[in-house]
Amino acid sequence: ERVPPLLTDLYQFTMAYAYWRAGRHQEPAVFEMFFRDNPFGGGFSLFAGLNDCLLFLRSFRLTDQVQFLRSVLPPNTDPAFFDFLRGLDCSAVTIRSLPEGSVVFARVPLMEVEGPLAVVQLLETSLLCLVNYALVCSNAARFRLAAGHQRRLLEMGLRRAQGPDGGLTASRYTHIGFDLTSNVQAGFLFGIPVAGTIAHSYVTSFNSLEEVWPQTLVTANGDPNPVDIISLTKGWLRRVCELMGAEPGKIREGELAAFVSYAIAYPQNFLPVIDSYSVGSGLLNFCAVALALCELGYKPVGVRLDSGDLCRQSIEVRRVFRLCSEFSVSTFNSLIIVGTNNISEESMAELNKKENEINVIGVGTHLVTCTKQPSLGCVYKLVEVRGRPRMKISEDPQKSTVAGRKTVYRLLDADHCFLDLLCLMVEPPPKAGCTLTCYPLGGDNSSVSVTPAQVTCLRKEVFLEGQVTEPLCSAAETRAKVQSSLQTLHPRHKRLQEPDSYTVALSEKLRNLVTELQKDSNSDSNFLLAN
Amino acid sequence: ERVPPLLTDLYQFTMAYAYWRAGRHQEPAVFEMFFRDNPFGGGFSLFAGLNDCLLFLRSFRLTDQVQFLRSVLPPNTDPAFFDFLRGLDCSAVTIRSLPEGSVVFARVPLMEVEGPLAVVQLLETSLLCLVNYALVCSNAARFRLAAGHQRRLLEMGLRRAQGPDGGLTASRYTHIGFDLTSNVQAGFLFGIPVAGTIAHSYVTSFNSLEEVWPQTLVTANGDPNPVDIISLTKGWLRRVCELMGAEPGKIREGELAAFVSYAIAYPQNFLPVIDSYSVGSGLLNFCAVALALCELGYKPVGVRLDSGDLCRQSIEVRRVFRLCSEFSVSTFNSLIIVGTNNISEESMAELNKKENEINVIGVGTHLVTCTKQPSLGCVYKLVEVRGRPRMKISEDPQKSTVAGRKTVYRLLDADHCFLDLLCLMVEPPPKAGCTLTCYPLGGDNSSVSVTPAQVTCLRKEVFLEGQVTEPLCSAAETRAKVQSSLQTLHPRHKRLQEPDSYTVALSEKLRNLVTELQKDSNSDSNFLLAN
Repeated sequence: ERVPPLLTDLYQFTMAYAYWRAGRHQEPAVFEMFFRDNPFGGGFSLFAGLNDCLLFLRSFRLTDQVQFLRSVLPPNTDPAFFDFLRGLDCSAVTIRSLPEGSVVFARVPLMEVEGPLAVVQLLETSLLCLVNYALVCSNAARFRLAAGHQRRLLEMGLRRAQGPDGGLTASRYTHIGFDLTSNVQAGFLFGIPVAGTIAHSYVTSFNSLEEVWPQTLVTANGDPNPVDIISLTKGWLRRVCELMGAEPGKIREGELAAFVSYAIAYPQNFLPVIDSYSVGSGLLNFCAVALALCELGYKPVGVRLDSGDLCRQSIEVRRVFRLCSEFSVSTFNSLIIVGTNNISEESMAELNKKENEINVIGVGTHLVTCTKQPSLGCVYKLVEVRGRPRMKISEDPQKSTVAGRKTVYRLLDADHCFLDLLCLMVEPPPKAGCTLTCYPLGGDNSSVSVTPAQVTCLRKEVFLEGQVTEPLCSAAETRAKVQSSLQTLHPRHKRLQEPDSYTVALSEKLRNLVTELQKDSNSDSNFLLAN
Repeated sequence: ERVPPLLTDLYQFTMAYAYWRAGRHQEPAVFEMFFRDNPFGGGFSLFAGLNDCLLFLRSFRLTDQVQFLRSVLPPNTDPAFFDFLRGLDCSAVTIRSLPEGSVVFARVPLMEVEGPLAVVQLLETSLLCLVNYALVCSNAARFRLAAGHQRRLLEMGLRRAQGPDGGLTASRYTHIGFDLTSNVQAGFLFGIPVAGTIAHSYVTSFNSLEEVWPQTLVTANGDPNPVDIISLTKGWLRRVCELMGAEPGKIREGELAAFVSYAIAYPQNFLPVIDSYSVGSGLLNFCAVALALCELGYKPVGVRLDSGDLCRQSIEVRRVFRLCSEFSVSTFNSLIIVGTNNISEESMAELNKKENEINVIGVGTHLVTCTKQPSLGCVYKLVEVRGRPRMKISEDPQKSTVAGRKTVYRLLDADHCFLDLLCLMVEPPPKAGCTLTCYPLGGDNSSVSVTPAQVTCLRKEVFLEGQVTEPLCSAAETRAKVQSSLQTLHPRHKRLQEPDSYTVALSEKLRNLVTELQKDSNSDSNFLLAN
């Protein structure tokens, strides 16, 4: 039970009580979830967290926890309220939502939660918590945009994540833009490809070649006679040093021992970290062991660089690999170079612009903790009670909400989406090829006329009468969904810096409702006239 | 099972296999955990996460998960390795650690993990993950320092936390500096006092006084005849408006309805949010309802401000409360004002300097997500294998480690700690009143002489043979521990901006070992001489 029913703010229960006390708890109510600004100063976001919300809703039920609530709610709380709470579930709740992994924009209602007032109020905090951290999905998309499409990306943030569950969620969500994770549990639960070989501690745990055991390796073709791998490696090391004009005296024996030992354990998966002491030593040791493996019929995989100027080093490493391929070892032309060194979105973008030979980039802290903006800031606002539209009319227009139950359409031209349209649920959908008038949010209240080539309805019912009505996406499906969703977005909205802002607009009817409510809100009928 | 045994990096298993393959898996090894820089640009940190680490270690055991590992480790992994993994636990692991809630400094080894090489390697990622996010504890301490000691602090970050578990952990750890949490589950599991009343959605869900039901309230003294609370409130509203020279036409009826309705539900706990429309309306409505409650013998609690300039508004609110107390209602002199509005450490410090009347401050996003630095950056480094000290000698001196098993002492003058001393475990402890020579880390290699008035040994054994050997701290105990630990710290190290740096030093013997190993590392014996 990842989200127990008490994992919420106390005021949800005090409000539920006040509603119950006033006999309003069963009133049909509708809340909407949205965020006010696209994260990271970008032009879009990704919606995720829906799967977790649905699992939470499906299992939401207050039972024994009610006893604890008795002890924290004020002592004069009517005991009959606890009977009401006991057995409360989401069987009367309906959710309309964008699909997991959709491209979304600020102010578009992502999810509509409909049900009895007291129940849908109680769900607020847990739903927000689950959706807000799915922000890491958008962060991963930005890292992917910064990295370009050529390189493979490895997520390796578990140790720096905000708690174990944060780490697991990060591995799951970042898979939308990343190819691999270091997190074994994410592989186990979500089928994400897992990668990893050795850390510096493995290298520094060896002192000399005498510690290597066994000192032999059989050939890849199964010849039962084991070969003395130490002698073989030493021979190759001499040849490599000659080729490079390098001093063997620069080579760490402990590091060589660690490499040989790892190669004996995993001759088909040889990819050590080569900068535990210096890249100079690590690279020569790698080449010697890799050439020995090649001679025995194995294919070494590559190296990892974990410090310093990754671009410059990768070029040098590649140059040495090319030189070594002259030992008629073609494998050396396809060795991979992995780079890991506190990569941020900015350093990733910079790295992508500079000449380098890095094939795989590992990212940890900045990815999983979303250092640039650690929360999406989703909010959950009441838009209808008992069939009547509600809105918060704040002195700060940014904090005002848009009343009423809505349908959300995405309008596309031939290739890309260009406008998200919020309509009243009762309106007929806009039609492809037909011109319509709408009112962009955040604009000067003037209208625009648009003629979409295609129209998509963004939200659908995903939860009804306590049941999930759509199949839950796997991590791989969400990844595919994100990638196809991002393709519909014009590059000008995907720019990481100063993107063009995407238009979100109200239909004429919805805009009229809002105007009317605003007027109405300022009319005498809403104020208490002294009498 | 909060931290399943597969919630780790794959390379821990590939390294464990390589050690096992080389017959080194049972070699006694010692790792140390530390961080390189005090977080948030401050002069100290707090150590937490130990409890979670101990619970993890106690239950760490690989069983059925081994089947999954077979599918992700390279296919040539010896099947006997999986037999070794099956049933693996921490019965041979010993942990020496600082107590949960201690003040700590960069480069001081927080925790020493001793045990069979393969096992202690496998534990790395999970332990780091648990300790790194305990950073939120240090963040809470800074918020408390910024807030001063007068005000009560409320943690309310759950909806913006990095996942449900992140939110729960944040509520638990921030309790060290905060008095209350909004998180009910944190109250349930950890006994932290919980608080909360109503949100804007409650206010905006009401339109008119006709929606209020029941419209009566009995008096606090138990008189069975219910009083018409609506009429009573309207009467008070007129008097308040007269007193203030306010136009009743500025007052939102829906808001008044919400307040009356909430007051009927919780007459002893009346503390509404008063800026759903405007503070002007909310404040008058609050006063009217609160005065009605007073007349019935109840004590209203206060108000919450959730937007705008909290300081300025609180002064105006307090002024109105004072005026209303002229209705011979002394309760109005003790009403509390709660402020919540995206509070950061900076805005908290600023608020603390400005004139204001805020009694309780609620903090969410910036507290729980540690926006200023979302990870502590703890690392886990090998310091000894088979009784031989190991160190990483990096080209970057910041990344070098200090070899050997250590005892850590804290030296104090009469009132405050002034130096943490790392000694070899075999050394006799420093004595109070005796002068000793040591070598500050990060200095110019010169020695200092110090004479402590008191000496404390910082770490003790907390886990032995699979068992936790010290009682686990409750949230309240950790809070007390932090507060007493912070008192030993001189204010110059507690300054939020540009604190004086605290000295962490090596004993002469430890320093000699390090120098020797450095020399040794550069001696020929560590390099492979071509032969």
